[in-house]
Amino acid sequence: MTELKNDRFLRALMREPVEFTPVWMMRQAGRYLPEYRHTRSSAGSFMDLCRNPELACEVTLQPLRRFPLDAAILFSDILTVPDAMGLGLYFAEGEGPRFERPVQDEQAVKNLAVPDPEVDLRYVMDAVRTIRRELHGSVPLIGFAGSPWTLATYMVEGSSTKNFAKVKGMMFGRPDLLHQLLEKIAAAVTLYLNAQIEAGAQAVMVFDTWGGVLSPGDFRSFSLAYMERIVQGLRREQEGRRVPVILFTKGGGRWLDAMAQTGCDALGVDWTIDLADARAAVGNRVALQGNIDPCILYASPQRIRAGVGQVLASYGRGSGLVFNLGHGIHPDVDPDHALALVEAVHELSPAYHNN
Amino acid sequence: MTELKNDRFLRALMREPVEFTPVWMMRQAGRYLPEYRHTRSSAGSFMDLCRNPELACEVTLQPLRRFPLDAAILFSDILTVPDAMGLGLYFAEGEGPRFERPVQDEQAVKNLAVPDPEVDLRYVMDAVRTIRRELHGSVPLIGFAGSPWTLATYMVEGSSTKNFAKVKGMMFGRPDLLHQLLEKIAAAVTLYLNAQIEAGAQAVMVFDTWGGVLSPGDFRSFSLAYMERIVQGLRREQEGRRVPVILFTKGGGRWLDAMAQTGCDALGVDWTIDLADARAAVGNRVALQGNIDPCILYASPQRIRAGVGQVLASYGRGSGLVFNLGHGIHPDVDPDHALALVEAVHELSPAYHNN
Repeated sequence: MTELKNDRFLRALMREPVEFTPVWMMRQAGRYLPEYRHTRSSAGSFMDLCRNPELACEVTLQPLRRFPLDAAILFSDILTVPDAMGLGLYFAEGEGPRFERPVQDEQAVKNLAVPDPEVDLRYVMDAVRTIRRELHGSVPLIGFAGSPWTLATYMVEGSSTKNFAKVKGMMFGRPDLLHQLLEKIAAAVTLYLNAQIEAGAQAVMVFDTWGGVLSPGDFRSFSLAYMERIVQGLRREQEGRRVPVILFTKGGGRWLDAMAQTGCDALGVDWTIDLADARAAVGNRVALQGNIDPCILYASPQRIRAGVGQVLASYGRGSGLVFNLGHGIHPDVDPDHALALVEAVHELSPAYHNN
Repeated sequence: MTELKNDRFLRALMREPVEFTPVWMMRQAGRYLPEYRHTRSSAGSFMDLCRNPELACEVTLQPLRRFPLDAAILFSDILTVPDAMGLGLYFAEGEGPRFERPVQDEQAVKNLAVPDPEVDLRYVMDAVRTIRRELHGSVPLIGFAGSPWTLATYMVEGSSTKNFAKVKGMMFGRPDLLHQLLEKIAAAVTLYLNAQIEAGAQAVMVFDTWGGVLSPGDFRSFSLAYMERIVQGLRREQEGRRVPVILFTKGGGRWLDAMAQTGCDALGVDWTIDLADARAAVGNRVALQGNIDPCILYASPQRIRAGVGQVLASYGRGSGLVFNLGHGIHPDVDPDHALALVEAVHELSPAYHNN
């Protein structure tokens, strides 16, 4: 493999010195970019785009052509795994994702397959290999998956949900069955992330989008325990280098201490917690990634710059921060505002490092 | 006015001794009750129901006929205030609330009226008076309003929102204008709640449904500051008795300490924080109200009872807790499960009080 030219992102995740704070943006490849919308419309459906390694590579690289980002992230969807487990993912026009065969009883849990990533999710592994090749070592590539709890919410509900009625009904009424389901998903996600690492992902991130809707005890039992199992099952070295693991629970600011004990290398944090408090909670155990409110991209470049300054000041001096949004970039923001954010991080952050 | 027969709810809010923990449920008058659906269908639209004091009284009392609840809450909607401020509230079929005239610029903020509650929101005050009369002193009546920030989200967006793009766009881009708007809303809400108190509300609650989508600093500036202003402006005694004020920020578990300093009497808490931690955060300054996950009502009565036991144990011994859900009851729960919850609180809680 080509030598990595910019490894600032990987160094920050290992809390090693960097000359400035690395930055990428969740959902940086996406609808806010006209070139993305163009590729997407030529691809057919959203899943057609995910399933085409050349096009998935193209949209992965698009934001890197515009912005001096310090990492690329695989273009894909967290629901590829349940789809490969046999649930039949589809997108109803104008609605969110849906499954033809949601998992709501004992038999459905039993019937779930644990996919072989190089067979059943081959298109993802091919995308990882293609992107790695096309990156030419410019920046590292991040692989990712959904957390077992988050995937279970979609798999049990059969779609997006506001109330989590079915999955929490199972959690309160049949915790044994939900645990069986989460075990299978955790096994599938572990294989999937290891396959991404073997295919070339240089860091991996677990998105626990819905962990924050749980009580503290339920979070530990039904979300954190399975993320920990995944962390423990991952291959952590590839191409002679550590492969850092980032866990991100949206709304999980209260649980950073527990999350830092899983053996992961970094925690994603959203904007509802100050980085100073987050850093105090995790100490020197893990790096942090975050955490500006993505809505700041609706404001002027000047205001964005001030917001970046506040986040950097809140984290303070030293390595261990990867600058990011606290959630995915919204589809209606101006790409020039995203540029203003990335540039502000690079310009304002050297003051916080030993240069 | 008739003497209050059951004042357990008011005593718990003042952290005075009670023989068992009082309980009510957010949105206890609502769609999960067949008798509510019957009244609602005879009334016409949802707002027709709110605007008819006799029918609003009827649905307020319905849950009290089924369950041994310790408080009634006015049946109304937080959006009555922006409606009376001139925004033109309507409900599009199958969608959420909408405003004909959202507030998105300087002129729109200037044009906003601060309504006279006894004139412009007379139907609410009439409902309060009617309910008080029909309660015959059985339990106290809770009045309520939305927090200025929460109302502003609807007023600026013009509808419900997932991303808060417009209101946060204003917050980051024109904070001065948002502050002007919030000041007007705070003035309107203060008058509105004081009018409810004069009409007979024996406690009032401020619902800050969307405070939790803010960063800690933005929460203090744009939500908490205006709730504090309201608390400071309320008449706190009526009929020779203290009128307790409850503040509830959904997702605000991290900010209880700051919220306890506003001068309110109690804080609502959702299920994402343990009551033991919440109690430690607020000490003896305020009472707490919450906090079971409303999804537990999908489980069996036995499981509900166990969940109630856990919440009571987490709070521990002594007064200062009003048992409630951590959010409104979902429309598809079985009313018998709500009964199981209320009964479990009354049966299991005496062990935590000095009897």
